[in-house]
Amino acid sequence: MSEHSAEAPPLAVVGGGVIGLSVAWRAAVAGFGVTVFDPAPGRGASWVAGGMLAPVAEAWPGEEDVLRLGEESLRRWPGFADDLCAEGADPGLSGAGTVVAGADRADVEQLSVLARYLGSLGREVSVLGGRELRRTQPGLGSSLSGGLLVPGDLAVDNRRLLDALIDAASRRGVRFVPAPVTTVSRTEVRTGDSVAEFAHVVLAAGAWSCGLHPELADRVRPLKGEILRLRARRGSLPPPRRTVRAVVEGRPCYLVPRADGELVLGATQYEAGFDSTVTARGVRELLENAERVFPAIAEYELVETAAGLRAASADNLPYIGALTDGVLAATGHHRNGLLLAPVTADAVVALLTGAEPPAPAVAAHPDRTRETQEESA
Amino acid sequence: MSEHSAEAPPLAVVGGGVIGLSVAWRAAVAGFGVTVFDPAPGRGASWVAGGMLAPVAEAWPGEEDVLRLGEESLRRWPGFADDLCAEGADPGLSGAGTVVAGADRADVEQLSVLARYLGSLGREVSVLGGRELRRTQPGLGSSLSGGLLVPGDLAVDNRRLLDALIDAASRRGVRFVPAPVTTVSRTEVRTGDSVAEFAHVVLAAGAWSCGLHPELADRVRPLKGEILRLRARRGSLPPPRRTVRAVVEGRPCYLVPRADGELVLGATQYEAGFDSTVTARGVRELLENAERVFPAIAEYELVETAAGLRAASADNLPYIGALTDGVLAATGHHRNGLLLAPVTADAVVALLTGAEPPAPAVAAHPDRTRETQEESA
Repeated sequence: MSEHSAEAPPLAVVGGGVIGLSVAWRAAVAGFGVTVFDPAPGRGASWVAGGMLAPVAEAWPGEEDVLRLGEESLRRWPGFADDLCAEGADPGLSGAGTVVAGADRADVEQLSVLARYLGSLGREVSVLGGRELRRTQPGLGSSLSGGLLVPGDLAVDNRRLLDALIDAASRRGVRFVPAPVTTVSRTEVRTGDSVAEFAHVVLAAGAWSCGLHPELADRVRPLKGEILRLRARRGSLPPPRRTVRAVVEGRPCYLVPRADGELVLGATQYEAGFDSTVTARGVRELLENAERVFPAIAEYELVETAAGLRAASADNLPYIGALTDGVLAATGHHRNGLLLAPVTADAVVALLTGAEPPAPAVAAHPDRTRETQEESA
Repeated sequence: MSEHSAEAPPLAVVGGGVIGLSVAWRAAVAGFGVTVFDPAPGRGASWVAGGMLAPVAEAWPGEEDVLRLGEESLRRWPGFADDLCAEGADPGLSGAGTVVAGADRADVEQLSVLARYLGSLGREVSVLGGRELRRTQPGLGSSLSGGLLVPGDLAVDNRRLLDALIDAASRRGVRFVPAPVTTVSRTEVRTGDSVAEFAHVVLAAGAWSCGLHPELADRVRPLKGEILRLRARRGSLPPPRRTVRAVVEGRPCYLVPRADGELVLGATQYEAGFDSTVTARGVRELLENAERVFPAIAEYELVETAAGLRAASADNLPYIGALTDGVLAATGHHRNGLLLAPVTADAVVALLTGAEPPAPAVAAHPDRTRETQEESA
């Protein structure tokens, strides 16, 4: 099935999460001979995610670079999904839209800021009172004060996407080495006792990237996130058809339906080092908030509890670009790995082939943090 | 390893939960040739349990027969455990005692009734104010109003016990058939296409017993119970050393520490037919209540969520005794299977050998419910 010749420039991708797999697939299509190193491809932070592709709702004031990169990637998502489907690997992209709910007046206040912002970006958005909210999405809690309808919003089934990327990459001849990388020295990649030399190395190891290159050592840190997966039981109200985002007393909460009937609840966010245990408090808070937003879930089956370690950067922008000769970073995607996969993959392939990367990706060059840190020092 | 001869009277035990396994082991010791039928021995309702051996706290006013049977079994527990240990199978019996806590004044009121009752039975018990309670068991929630210390209380590690019983039974030559029994007709036991004839059959299939004998059809029903297993994380307060029982706004809650560092939280109780899914509500309520009783568990790892189907009878007494010629019941143990295992096994072996069963077991004869039902009809 491999299309590239023995002379294809050899590329190592360290990390087989959504970023590494997207880079590997796109690079293989572009003619590289790709090897992905990961002990468990597709099972990192991107496995533990809701899959909302909503750059605005994740952005904070002052993070315009993050928003621009997100909007650029969102524009690329439909084409990215079509290309995957053309490879026979459907990632489960949904355009059912989002309902955003606010629990109390202060929460609704916060949403009206979001509505104005979406409007200024030319996005379609309707402001809903409490009753309209429940008419738009039956089953929402009677105590919710109001909300928004964002019809265009996209979501992706993160697990289908990961499987689709592994499929598509494999068909394009990408080789998988199921071993953890211990060191990357120039363009040499070491796993246990064996070392291999590549023309290029892409570091896409998420939170673990900090241990793989001195330039990333103090710039990527793990940020724990917990999610739950629920399933409606016989006789209980079916899950919402759209993504439901909510702000409950200032805390964000989301419910993302899957085509197979599961409902993903997320997500907590903690600084806990490399500890990825699911905590009692995290599960309790997720369930409490979600019951307030969509009370029927009380009767749902709790199918799975999971925690993942997201790769956080200081400014919430990822690192995309050259670290040293032949070594590129594609990490630090924080809560946005699924959203940013298309633009990251396109940027990395552009940098590898000497083409111009998408303009908003330039701000994500690894050098920028160093400068910021030096300025503030 | 088998000690019994080919002429040992053949006995079938249908169901390999704590009751079936205890009967099988004790009957094998008494010289029977025992076959246990269960697709997954040791993995029924008794696998999903706290392991408190506290008959009084589980009894309700008017249920003196249940209490007498429980007290009789409690007296037999140390000997039962010693006998298992002598077979090289330690069930993890703990005598660390129980702290009972009440969340508010009404809960403490309820506990003072329990204290008087324990006193009248000659059990040692101390009444504690809120501050004494927290001094007795550090880590208990500051909002708890008061409680009791019951030093003598026993608890057993239910999973170690089940493994120990399987071990001890196997060493005594008990044969395990890992198949579900479809029908029991007189003393013939059918599994799929094969039928085997026995001298005696003991029905110990818990909630599933209702489908195996017409005399049990409308007298045993499933009662769902959910439990959680937690584990302290580095830096979090260690689990309590004693069992902690609590009443939180009228709802019972228990935390039972295990020697291996796990903490079992229990238990919900629902009528849900044969549905044994873990629900969002059940998990949320268990965590909420337990956090109020022992706040440090918020930071614990949530290791497992599980649901089991207890076998409930109309009057909370089990059914122990002959149903028809050669067929005995040992089922309907409700929340008390672990507590009642020794007395049930001794009663069944006595009935099989023509000896006198322990006096309190006589009230548990299957005929009594039929009479009660006829009286009330």
